[in-house]
Amino acid sequence: MKPQTTPNKFGGPASRETRLQIVQPIKSIDELASFCKRRGFVFPGSELYGGLSGFWDYGPLGVELKNKIKADWWKKFVQDRDDVVGIDGAIVNNPNIWIASGHVGSFADVLVDCKRCGVKHRADVLINDVLGIPADSMAIEQMKEIIEKNNIRCPACKKGELTEPRRFNLLFKTHVGAVEGEKSTAYLRGETCQTIFVNFKNVLDTARMKLPFGIAQAGKAFRNEIAPRDFLFRSREFEQMELEFFVHPQKLNDCPEFEKIAKKKVLVLTASEQVKKSQKVTEMTFGELAEKVYVKSKWHAYWLFQHYNWFLELGISPENLRLREHTKDELSHYAVATFDIEYNFPFGWKELGGQADRGQFDLTQHAKFSKKDLSCFDEETKQRFIPYVAAEPSQGVDRAFLALLTEAYTVDGDRIVLKLKPKLAPVQVAVFPLLRNDAKLLKFAQGVHKGIKEKFITHYEESGNIGKSYRRQDEIGTPACITVDFDSLKGKDVTVRDRDTMKQKRVKVKELIEYLEKILQSK
Amino acid sequence: MKPQTTPNKFGGPASRETRLQIVQPIKSIDELASFCKRRGFVFPGSELYGGLSGFWDYGPLGVELKNKIKADWWKKFVQDRDDVVGIDGAIVNNPNIWIASGHVGSFADVLVDCKRCGVKHRADVLINDVLGIPADSMAIEQMKEIIEKNNIRCPACKKGELTEPRRFNLLFKTHVGAVEGEKSTAYLRGETCQTIFVNFKNVLDTARMKLPFGIAQAGKAFRNEIAPRDFLFRSREFEQMELEFFVHPQKLNDCPEFEKIAKKKVLVLTASEQVKKSQKVTEMTFGELAEKVYVKSKWHAYWLFQHYNWFLELGISPENLRLREHTKDELSHYAVATFDIEYNFPFGWKELGGQADRGQFDLTQHAKFSKKDLSCFDEETKQRFIPYVAAEPSQGVDRAFLALLTEAYTVDGDRIVLKLKPKLAPVQVAVFPLLRNDAKLLKFAQGVHKGIKEKFITHYEESGNIGKSYRRQDEIGTPACITVDFDSLKGKDVTVRDRDTMKQKRVKVKELIEYLEKILQSK
Repeated sequence: MKPQTTPNKFGGPASRETRLQIVQPIKSIDELASFCKRRGFVFPGSELYGGLSGFWDYGPLGVELKNKIKADWWKKFVQDRDDVVGIDGAIVNNPNIWIASGHVGSFADVLVDCKRCGVKHRADVLINDVLGIPADSMAIEQMKEIIEKNNIRCPACKKGELTEPRRFNLLFKTHVGAVEGEKSTAYLRGETCQTIFVNFKNVLDTARMKLPFGIAQAGKAFRNEIAPRDFLFRSREFEQMELEFFVHPQKLNDCPEFEKIAKKKVLVLTASEQVKKSQKVTEMTFGELAEKVYVKSKWHAYWLFQHYNWFLELGISPENLRLREHTKDELSHYAVATFDIEYNFPFGWKELGGQADRGQFDLTQHAKFSKKDLSCFDEETKQRFIPYVAAEPSQGVDRAFLALLTEAYTVDGDRIVLKLKPKLAPVQVAVFPLLRNDAKLLKFAQGVHKGIKEKFITHYEESGNIGKSYRRQDEIGTPACITVDFDSLKGKDVTVRDRDTMKQKRVKVKELIEYLEKILQSK
Repeated sequence: MKPQTTPNKFGGPASRETRLQIVQPIKSIDELASFCKRRGFVFPGSELYGGLSGFWDYGPLGVELKNKIKADWWKKFVQDRDDVVGIDGAIVNNPNIWIASGHVGSFADVLVDCKRCGVKHRADVLINDVLGIPADSMAIEQMKEIIEKNNIRCPACKKGELTEPRRFNLLFKTHVGAVEGEKSTAYLRGETCQTIFVNFKNVLDTARMKLPFGIAQAGKAFRNEIAPRDFLFRSREFEQMELEFFVHPQKLNDCPEFEKIAKKKVLVLTASEQVKKSQKVTEMTFGELAEKVYVKSKWHAYWLFQHYNWFLELGISPENLRLREHTKDELSHYAVATFDIEYNFPFGWKELGGQADRGQFDLTQHAKFSKKDLSCFDEETKQRFIPYVAAEPSQGVDRAFLALLTEAYTVDGDRIVLKLKPKLAPVQVAVFPLLRNDAKLLKFAQGVHKGIKEKFITHYEESGNIGKSYRRQDEIGTPACITVDFDSLKGKDVTVRDRDTMKQKRVKVKELIEYLEKILQSK
């Protein structure tokens, strides 16, 4: 099959150099979704039965990429650090957790229904789509006024009048035990971090950690979105990787590694620019971020850097990343300060990950509602205190997946190349015998494959057409392809083709592992 | 803290030899649960709010062990094989999947309520507990008769009469979208394998696989158990690792690797022994298992061996494992033949994992209900056919975790040692400076730690008491402990202590990585 060619955004045919410079040749999120389906990265959930909006199934390549993203995060943020431990909590929790956290009371979107066709819309999204006014932090009364004043109609049937806006809670509800009723109500967790807060004391008691330290978790969370959209970006079932970093409230700036990161630069869209309706970004250092009190502490700036830098390490270019400070109006009920890490998605700059300074809100709430003591003892002052969550690197796995695919997707002439870092590639090395009907050749190729498969994640294929096989591997991001031909039988060597440069090199079989390790590390 | 000593099952003090022979010194599952809580492996879910029965949170050590079990399974059953690919499907699915699979109609337990105190009981468990009669495959009418005839009362209040038995569906229900009602009902998946069946065609079309091949998945599943019990063994939220192996229905015995495993032996409790109310196990080979048609195909026997052997590789002793053939009466509605892999748990021989031959049931059902063609084309006969699921290695992650902990938990004199395989140990190497108030020593110890932490999962602790630190590491299964003392400063060497033998060896710092790799591999 000929790979589908994506016209670059400059229209007509461009020079090879120009083409290679296109950072994001994906025109739309739908195009990416269709690529993901075609190549087995992601399928629409329940597709066989007409689907279920907001749910997705990861296919053979997608699950490998997703697992690698998760493993890399866990290694960097948990295993490689002495001051962070992990947990893995249940998805279904005692409902009091979500009452204490404020979710049962206020985790809601504003909804309007079409009186004619019955379709439901998120009021803020509707106002933004129709009038171009950002509305996520708008009061419900104001939304009502705007919809009436502008006579906004249902965008689905183009005709229907809309109902008055009303609140709709995003937690999925279920019942535990054999009786349905208020007493048996339980919720699917709307965020993973609450399972961290309610286990704070358990971890403190068993893991021999001392403040400052962090607790991390990766796992599923669920939100009953009114209007799931943009492929994996806003779905109803998703995966989070979150880390809550607990600090003594009087030691928010005692961050020993801060100087190491203080001079690193980042693009920032500040709250004050947004209040002025400006999108002007400023380049500043993480040191300035802390000094000018955009963030409330050095620890917050430190973790923002770690989070931001993780994306750079995975190959995202700094031009496609920026920090966006939340304005006062949009801060969540628990947050002292929040920054989003935004990515330049095909549908615009949107939240890739986020980091709130949650202060003492959550532990205070849980202590109050559970009537348990969640304080720590200060050996110096002999006083008890509630630990302060100075930073919460919170990352959606699916959004990281989306950004990394968007960034890696490259059109180079007539081929599509997924320029993933080798450590993320679902397949690292593919092996092809040049002909599939020669027994000796096949046996030799199988031997070559066997010799490397302990070391790398490999794909072996007795292909009919080597050119097509190369193209297919380019599209799924395989960094190296090995071809075994008749000369291999004599010379005990093979051809290794580089995904990005397409250069081919003859390598002795006995030097193959070393050579592959070198090119995989060089990218 | 002095480690809590567990008396061995022979009562008084035994000789060192006798003590070391005790394969499972855990007296009860509650003791294991309390060990898991004390050491940070597993906490009761929502404990801060009085818990939620049947839900558990994995702590800092538990999440590492669980992740390693999952990664090892995935490597062996997916990544190392050319004939298996993975997927990762959503937990919430279109409800028609669960109608087609038969779960909405028949995935139910039989329940009785106490008329006096209201407590609910699983009727089969009640009959088994009170009368010692196995009842999981008993008809509801028979249960009614037995309960009445024997005048069984509520075991909770010891007095109340019981209601008539009734069916209770185990699927957790929720609602997707902004309107609650029949049309918005969705279920949390009751098993992961259905997400595999409904993606069969998607995988076939995109992953270039040819029969025979398998599709694997690891992920959460949910069952609204009436009476969760035995710690992680029967919980309401759990994790499965499942593999569906699809074969041409006329080629169920075309298993090329079969001869390699045909002579391996295993203990088997056959259906015919169980019908005779006997518990007599027979040692037989996997070849005999296939020849004597206990299993229906060589592929089924082959996968039973792979599954069984995985546990041997992870350190479970063959005496604590057996296969149990399902009797005709207990076979699930989808199964042609089923074997459980049973483990000798502290509460008796119970299902650790299972493998059904599901025949063509699931793909046939889904083709019928979705009205889509799920057949494959046979190039030789030019006919279409529905692939046959010859084997389904199905493993609960939490049960594997439970069995591995049970097996590893050892009492050796006055110490508890968790004899986990090094590749599963949450911490592989711990480093302790002998004194914590000497700056030079601390700096040297920190350097030693830094030098090895890229290679191993480590724990560094400036401990006050080296003996206690050793004991703590023994209890969590750390295979090697390094002590840095004053001689280390001069000799550039450290003491390495072996978890199992407690032998200590002086090793040069420059040879440390090599030495550690050797002892970690030797266990």
